[in-house]
Amino acid sequence: MSAQNIYDDPTFLAGYVTLDRQVDGLDGAAEWPLLRSMLPDMAGRRVVDLGCGFGWFSRWADEHGAVSVLGIDLSTKMLERARSDTTSATIDYQCADLDLVELDPDTAELVFSSLTLHDVRDLHRLWSQVAGSLTPGGSVVFSVEHPIYSAPTTQRFETSEAGDRVWPLDNYLVEGQRVRTWFVDGVVKEHRTVATYVNTVLEAGLVLDRIEEFGPPAEDVDARPELADDRHRPWFLLVGATKPA
Amino acid sequence: MSAQNIYDDPTFLAGYVTLDRQVDGLDGAAEWPLLRSMLPDMAGRRVVDLGCGFGWFSRWADEHGAVSVLGIDLSTKMLERARSDTTSATIDYQCADLDLVELDPDTAELVFSSLTLHDVRDLHRLWSQVAGSLTPGGSVVFSVEHPIYSAPTTQRFETSEAGDRVWPLDNYLVEGQRVRTWFVDGVVKEHRTVATYVNTVLEAGLVLDRIEEFGPPAEDVDARPELADDRHRPWFLLVGATKPA
Repeated sequence: MSAQNIYDDPTFLAGYVTLDRQVDGLDGAAEWPLLRSMLPDMAGRRVVDLGCGFGWFSRWADEHGAVSVLGIDLSTKMLERARSDTTSATIDYQCADLDLVELDPDTAELVFSSLTLHDVRDLHRLWSQVAGSLTPGGSVVFSVEHPIYSAPTTQRFETSEAGDRVWPLDNYLVEGQRVRTWFVDGVVKEHRTVATYVNTVLEAGLVLDRIEEFGPPAEDVDARPELADDRHRPWFLLVGATKPA
Repeated sequence: MSAQNIYDDPTFLAGYVTLDRQVDGLDGAAEWPLLRSMLPDMAGRRVVDLGCGFGWFSRWADEHGAVSVLGIDLSTKMLERARSDTTSATIDYQCADLDLVELDPDTAELVFSSLTLHDVRDLHRLWSQVAGSLTPGGSVVFSVEHPIYSAPTTQRFETSEAGDRVWPLDNYLVEGQRVRTWFVDGVVKEHRTVATYVNTVLEAGLVLDRIEEFGPPAEDVDARPELADDRHRPWFLLVGATKPA
């Protein structure tokens, strides 16, 4: 069992690099301020960045005082650019499949992951690796596509019979793979419920600190009415947890 | 601020008593086996049942070894029947509004609540009462209408533009009151996100044990195809948490 490596597909990658969050980095990610608020202070921490991509977060952690950062990704093309964009010697990049990766025990104070774990097939295995890699008191903070977003057959707002703008939700409780068209056909993502994301963290022996369901806040919609639909369903699920001291 | 007391409306109550779960008690509630699996052993525990209604759970806890049970409800009519259906002297019933109730500190090993907290206006206040009432190591187990169920303008499956059966989700991120027709017009429920239910528990100093999003399992749908729609969105959110010892 291993994850799909769509990120090394040239057509996919050509589209992917045009996303705001790949052009502008963390500042191009609408959820970043909320995700950042869930992070511990980086100072003195050893950080692992699962699905580091171009290394945006790895560099941010380094600049904010992490003593070491290990960025892990499956895509050799993304790691090539991450390495070429990175000057700090305290950041290492490693090419690995998160369904097979072995993390060194007791070596990290923070494991971070942004929008990657919905690509992983075996979350139980990965959480077991993550929990083992954390030192007591260490943290996990991650984001994934929200399950309400990842579930449905059609991921597009429409007008309901009653005339409302709605997100046509189906198959929320049916966990498993969804095959999407995203720059290219055949992009595979794993749909899991919110309960599964939370319970797999708990089953790994971690203590839940907070979850967030991110969509644009009401005040952003006042300023940008084109975001109004995005109050109807969240984009991302954000989770923070701690290994007991 | 206080909760609506729709349960004392005779027209509402006449409809409500016909629900499977009011005719057959806990065995008439599809989520009961899952909810029961989240409960600690009742033996020796002092139990509080928030929104006890006719006392189904209060009596079950008593029969399963609880040393005392306090059932609390706002509806005098429901409490009248609870008292008349109850023979055990170790069960007490109390009429109180969960938005105003004062729970005795350090007096309960389990606080339970079934499908009631979506009627409560101020959940922060109530969790603070609940956390104070629990002894160290004590548990909270509760169910509510799932936020995906409680959010939308129209709570009815329909056929999407693509021809799929869908739950027309809107306003998931817009927390606040929803006014429904349920036996009578004007039934008020509070819509909150899953994150708010989880985070308010954590903010009260409790440790999350498990959450569940209940809908009929796939095998039940094989046996009863009329349940197929109910795989598209959960009915109930179930939460279990513990006060640190």
